[in-house]
Amino acid sequence: MAAAAARQALEAAGVAPESLTCIVHASGTPEQCLPDGGPLLQRELGLGGSGIRAFSVHATCLSFLVGLETACMLLARADTPDDALILVCSSEISSRHVDPTDEHVAPLFGDGAAACVVRKASWREGSALHRAHMETYADGASLTEVRGGGTNFPFHRVDDRAAPNPAATREVNHFQMDGPATMRMVLQHGPGFMERLRPGLSSGLGDIAWVVPHQASGLALDAITDALGWPAERMLRTLDRLGNVVAASIPLTLHAGVTSGRIQRGDKLLLMGTGAGLSFGGMILTF
Amino acid sequence: MAAAAARQALEAAGVAPESLTCIVHASGTPEQCLPDGGPLLQRELGLGGSGIRAFSVHATCLSFLVGLETACMLLARADTPDDALILVCSSEISSRHVDPTDEHVAPLFGDGAAACVVRKASWREGSALHRAHMETYADGASLTEVRGGGTNFPFHRVDDRAAPNPAATREVNHFQMDGPATMRMVLQHGPGFMERLRPGLSSGLGDIAWVVPHQASGLALDAITDALGWPAERMLRTLDRLGNVVAASIPLTLHAGVTSGRIQRGDKLLLMGTGAGLSFGGMILTF
Repeated sequence: MAAAAARQALEAAGVAPESLTCIVHASGTPEQCLPDGGPLLQRELGLGGSGIRAFSVHATCLSFLVGLETACMLLARADTPDDALILVCSSEISSRHVDPTDEHVAPLFGDGAAACVVRKASWREGSALHRAHMETYADGASLTEVRGGGTNFPFHRVDDRAAPNPAATREVNHFQMDGPATMRMVLQHGPGFMERLRPGLSSGLGDIAWVVPHQASGLALDAITDALGWPAERMLRTLDRLGNVVAASIPLTLHAGVTSGRIQRGDKLLLMGTGAGLSFGGMILTF
Repeated sequence: MAAAAARQALEAAGVAPESLTCIVHASGTPEQCLPDGGPLLQRELGLGGSGIRAFSVHATCLSFLVGLETACMLLARADTPDDALILVCSSEISSRHVDPTDEHVAPLFGDGAAACVVRKASWREGSALHRAHMETYADGASLTEVRGGGTNFPFHRVDDRAAPNPAATREVNHFQMDGPATMRMVLQHGPGFMERLRPGLSSGLGDIAWVVPHQASGLALDAITDALGWPAERMLRTLDRLGNVVAASIPLTLHAGVTSGRIQRGDKLLLMGTGAGLSFGGMILTF
């Protein structure tokens, strides 16, 4: 799925896979423990002998923002050639971590993948990353979590070849959320975060043409728009069609905005969202 | 364990935890699926209400190098204040992914954690990152892997609450390695990688005082030193004492070099290694 999204992105950008200089995998749900998703995606793209650097970033639902920011920092580095091309890809099979019988959680999520190719823009093009900011409040770490999938709950006990780990119940491998408490924390820290991202953002959008938010829930989007006094028609939504696709939500919504013709080159965009952690992330860029 | 290492690093640096501006978690073995290790470490350090940005990078055994490089890029960014302080931490419980009865793999690994605090150096101090380079050859992705722990092998089948996934055998959750084939790929691409990291490195160390390598295996370190004509006495080793501690090996070996008095301020160091992927990574810096 990541490779399919990557191929579409490469085609849309008119870039041959072999021309990439780096692959940044930016997903919340990994495919396997080792190697990370970067090399696995490289192999799927038929680039296994290329040497193209591949690694992963993980900031739950904000992984794409961190991946895009990392790509921009790599492009800005002095030793990066002008023709460098970086693929950033988010791919999520959230259904593997959702209990289909959980009526609060199951309807919220979707599976999907999205990718983009970034390069240095010429001054004539004007595309630019103006600001990236992120804050984490781990007091809320247990409000949204999947406790399994790591060393806390290994699949097998070391001392018994046959028995599964008694702690590794179905519940620890499924997404657990305290929605109301999460919403309280989001409304508590959200306006301050927006103000620190850019002064004025906590009370209006200014020159920002479109907001591309993480699609956590319709209620959350309504509440945030309301609390910050933002015009609802400038918030792009794919939630009704795609659900919450974890880290792929922001790039999928960006893609929908571009292909629908609403987002135009030169528009100032705000990419933003919250992620398990609890983290707030935002980027202001000229598309 | 990560928090203990982080506290020691903060103490050694004379930095109060609250003064940190960012936490980069850089491990190969995650603690749980969501949130990532960044927020979990922030919470363990008692910083859950601080808002200090926290996220993760994952490049298997090279995660610390990617984490340190990311920290340096964040510090170099124009909007980063001069007093910014970034914690980079690698923490690994590799024993959770090693079959203790596997006589080829089990003796190689160790558990451990290491952390460092980085800030902008003044010109007077002279500490600097000169070059970071990484290459990935995913043709070798299946040579070293832990196939479980992700969406490929979910713990539970969606259609059956009680049954464990039949594909989720003990084997997929344990580290599998084709040592000889890995070694062949390392020797095939290693000299070229070193030359691209810095011309001349494939035949000698030049002004590099110490090499801080990933501690994959003694045989591999011997073979690389030999193939590149590097003086064996400048390769620091902790393998006999600590084993392969995944991403924590390089910072633990760096720590051992500093505390033993061998590495001095102003020394030029080469941090380097290979990681599942198969990836090669190297950084040249002035300590």
